[in-house]
Amino acid sequence: MAVHLDPIGVLHTCFKEKFGIPRQPNLAVEAPGRLDFFPEFARPEAVRGLEQFSHIWLIFIFHKAVKKGGKWSAMVRPPRLGGNKKVGVFASRSPFRPNPIGMSCIRLEAIESTPKGPVLHLTGVDILDQTPVLDIKPYLPYSDRLDTARDGFAPAPDNKTCQVSFSDTAATQIQEREKAIPNLFSIITQVLENDPRPAYSNARFSSIKEETRTDGLNKDRVYGIRLFDFDLKWQAAGNKIRVLCLDPV
Amino acid sequence: MAVHLDPIGVLHTCFKEKFGIPRQPNLAVEAPGRLDFFPEFARPEAVRGLEQFSHIWLIFIFHKAVKKGGKWSAMVRPPRLGGNKKVGVFASRSPFRPNPIGMSCIRLEAIESTPKGPVLHLTGVDILDQTPVLDIKPYLPYSDRLDTARDGFAPAPDNKTCQVSFSDTAATQIQEREKAIPNLFSIITQVLENDPRPAYSNARFSSIKEETRTDGLNKDRVYGIRLFDFDLKWQAAGNKIRVLCLDPV
Repeated sequence: MAVHLDPIGVLHTCFKEKFGIPRQPNLAVEAPGRLDFFPEFARPEAVRGLEQFSHIWLIFIFHKAVKKGGKWSAMVRPPRLGGNKKVGVFASRSPFRPNPIGMSCIRLEAIESTPKGPVLHLTGVDILDQTPVLDIKPYLPYSDRLDTARDGFAPAPDNKTCQVSFSDTAATQIQEREKAIPNLFSIITQVLENDPRPAYSNARFSSIKEETRTDGLNKDRVYGIRLFDFDLKWQAAGNKIRVLCLDPV
Repeated sequence: MAVHLDPIGVLHTCFKEKFGIPRQPNLAVEAPGRLDFFPEFARPEAVRGLEQFSHIWLIFIFHKAVKKGGKWSAMVRPPRLGGNKKVGVFASRSPFRPNPIGMSCIRLEAIESTPKGPVLHLTGVDILDQTPVLDIKPYLPYSDRLDTARDGFAPAPDNKTCQVSFSDTAATQIQEREKAIPNLFSIITQVLENDPRPAYSNARFSSIKEETRTDGLNKDRVYGIRLFDFDLKWQAAGNKIRVLCLDPV
């Protein structure tokens, strides 16, 4: 028994690859996104009243998380558990699941009217660029905010665990781009201070030899994150992250 | 661009028809449900760890809300607005939407191991019997409980607005069934005290002639709700509801 659904639109975000996407919405509070509707669904009436809600649920397809041959795994290794402990796929929010459906509650900043229909402007996005969206629902505090829910094995994470600094080169490059991309400085800081490194990586808070460079950074390992139209290059040592530069892709 | 999804299981609930289903989860806190997995997905490993969460999201198909010819309406009339004001379908939780996807956070009471695989026992259900389920996700307070979200036009409802009483016949019938259906008395009370009558109906808090019977009930209008394996018959006057009997279907 298969169900056939037609995406209503596509999400454009600053996250061009999986690495670096915040592990939950509203962590990088200024990370922007926009939802463009496909022509059939681009009708102003369909979103009338939505502007009264501060947050919306997006239900979407994890379009880059489909496994080869359509196979699914019954167990996954959540990054929150260090990546070395397995739990059932339905006890996780892993993108690799029998039906690759995602849901995120995202801040709705504005609804823009365009000749091609309404466009939703969003922040606090934790979703990959080009993601197909199946549905939009208002976030209803009276039904979605459960004050008594138990956390299970996923208590609130230690947010903002990293101190982020910038090289002169990076600072100049960011300043030059802030006209085109408002709040770019904050966005990069928010993405990095949540520590995008995988928890199971040796790199995180552990075996980095802080003496490899005089400034304490690991001289060998340079991370790259595709963000907007550039490649963000940075290094890490313990809980210190230094942005090196913004490379063209 | 169509997306093809396979339901992972089917939900069995006490709600056999749309009328009477609570308008949000956890209103009728004892309303029971069970999720049976389809054979391909009935694997104990897939739910391992899920028992650590008190609540789960069910993502499901509104299988009885598909419009003829697959047409969708850009605007709907939410019952919360009295049924006489239209809003955009994406500003509502209406089951009639371009992709008939529903989501509810439901209390997880227990995971039972059976020879046919795991079965999830649920309460606080607001979902129609036989609903196909697409996905299960843990409710994560740190990401799903937004303390700052704005309510829009759907503030918390006035719950439990009706006083429910029972005829001797009904009381006896319920007592006889409580062995088979635990908490039946509470479940019926919870369903009715939330007032299942449509807000736009003249019946609600308005033009009922309270003098039509000596007990103040409207003698002509008898409501029926299919619940479990019986038809619940009741009458209403203002905010008083009286259960008459449990008829066989």
